[in-house]
Amino acid sequence: MFYIIGLGLGDPEDITVKGLNIVKNCERIYLESYTSILSCGQEKLEEYYGKKLILADREMVEQRADEILEGADTQSIAFLVVGDPFGATTHTDLMLRAKEKGIKTSIVHNASIMNAVGCCGLQLYHFGETVSIPYWDDSWKPDSFYDKIVANLKHGLHTLCLLDIKVKEPTLESLMKKKREYMPPRFMSVSEAAGQLLEIVASKHADEADGMGSQKEHRLSDNSLVVGLARVGHETQQIIACSLKEMQNIDLGPPLHSLIIPNINLHPLEKEFLQQFAALDEPL
Amino acid sequence: MFYIIGLGLGDPEDITVKGLNIVKNCERIYLESYTSILSCGQEKLEEYYGKKLILADREMVEQRADEILEGADTQSIAFLVVGDPFGATTHTDLMLRAKEKGIKTSIVHNASIMNAVGCCGLQLYHFGETVSIPYWDDSWKPDSFYDKIVANLKHGLHTLCLLDIKVKEPTLESLMKKKREYMPPRFMSVSEAAGQLLEIVASKHADEADGMGSQKEHRLSDNSLVVGLARVGHETQQIIACSLKEMQNIDLGPPLHSLIIPNINLHPLEKEFLQQFAALDEPL
Repeated sequence: MFYIIGLGLGDPEDITVKGLNIVKNCERIYLESYTSILSCGQEKLEEYYGKKLILADREMVEQRADEILEGADTQSIAFLVVGDPFGATTHTDLMLRAKEKGIKTSIVHNASIMNAVGCCGLQLYHFGETVSIPYWDDSWKPDSFYDKIVANLKHGLHTLCLLDIKVKEPTLESLMKKKREYMPPRFMSVSEAAGQLLEIVASKHADEADGMGSQKEHRLSDNSLVVGLARVGHETQQIIACSLKEMQNIDLGPPLHSLIIPNINLHPLEKEFLQQFAALDEPL
Repeated sequence: MFYIIGLGLGDPEDITVKGLNIVKNCERIYLESYTSILSCGQEKLEEYYGKKLILADREMVEQRADEILEGADTQSIAFLVVGDPFGATTHTDLMLRAKEKGIKTSIVHNASIMNAVGCCGLQLYHFGETVSIPYWDDSWKPDSFYDKIVANLKHGLHTLCLLDIKVKEPTLESLMKKKREYMPPRFMSVSEAAGQLLEIVASKHADEADGMGSQKEHRLSDNSLVVGLARVGHETQQIIACSLKEMQNIDLGPPLHSLIIPNINLHPLEKEFLQQFAALDEPL
């Protein structure tokens, strides 16, 4: 049997009882290590399970799936995923590859950022499409996610922005060599995400006159309320609500971070709940 | 401390290790019993914990929160929720009431239908706003959720439809008496939901001429592909993909059910994954 097991978001103890019992009886255990990270780190997991974990990076999962699935027709193999198993496309693909080989699969669900984000008090059924904010570089500054945020605002919906993760990215120079060398891992902070959003706001609306009335409601501005979240589900979790401009100067500490662009017209209960995270002692 | 603990979706063992350790040390344990139900039932939970549970219905949670929170400043009280703690507005409210009283709160996250729905292979970041489909009666047939489905289709997004639950609803007659009497619990099936959607489709588009081209893509028809899910996360989980018309005749067994209206243009991987759930042996 091939098990894909969600680990939840914070500590080793965020695994479900079902998941833990399976892990303890598996011959090989892989830990997916490129779409997310667990706040507690790999060593703590190994200590908790009393077992060694095999780190599975993008290259292994996407190009050496056979190796991961080897023997799963007769043995129990576990593939651990931070959050829920269905958070990333490649895990769905892995299940399909297993089925093709006639290997039985079993899923153990868990919390992921997609539902745990409710911890800030914004109601999950008021969220629209989730967007991803990628790291920009000098030559590549994609901003299509901005249009999705605006579309959500138009429909009175919040937007969850997942922030970029770069793990084990080969350096440009090493791509030409036989031996790959990797850049240090990077995790986008709410401050960096706010910086990129401010740049988009400045370039898109630079030539707009003031006084556009209702149209202005449906776009971001420097003063738009945003919510920053760090290490959701972990005991060091932090949430802060402030303007986009202020968010650029907020340091929420170690990864992972997420950013929410709330809809303008908050439900009174959402407002009351968010108020406790307000950066300034002023009503939101 | 007041703990709000997500139970996940299926068995007693879907609780996290963290959650179970807390439950075992709590003085009183409430089980929220009106926004969802656990496939395994209350007795199995009590047996698993070795503890009695106090059932918390809507009336208790919304009007007698003080009773639930009593003593939580010095004792450990747990409030168990099927899925994740932030699935329903009233749980957010309960947290605010606790904070008002100076009672510390702690959340233990878990899987909920909002993220576990990824098990059908449709990617979570391709979902738009979630809608709720309420039971109709002779005089009240709200259909505003239909416009939200259409808006999602227009943006190329899937819609998760949460289906109505009626638990401990007083009978109309008993509202006038001193002693409340309750209707038997009802849980909307995918078949019932499809029936209501077909009625809306028939009434909204009855007078439309054929050949509307791209406009037709953005509305539902009898032949639209829909996905029915039952008991997600439980070992008896069932998923079926078929037309809206066919779904009306599908019996997925005991609750809870959910229905998905997928976007027309599926990603190849989504299509490949969904294919294994096709009701007919034809390509989707």
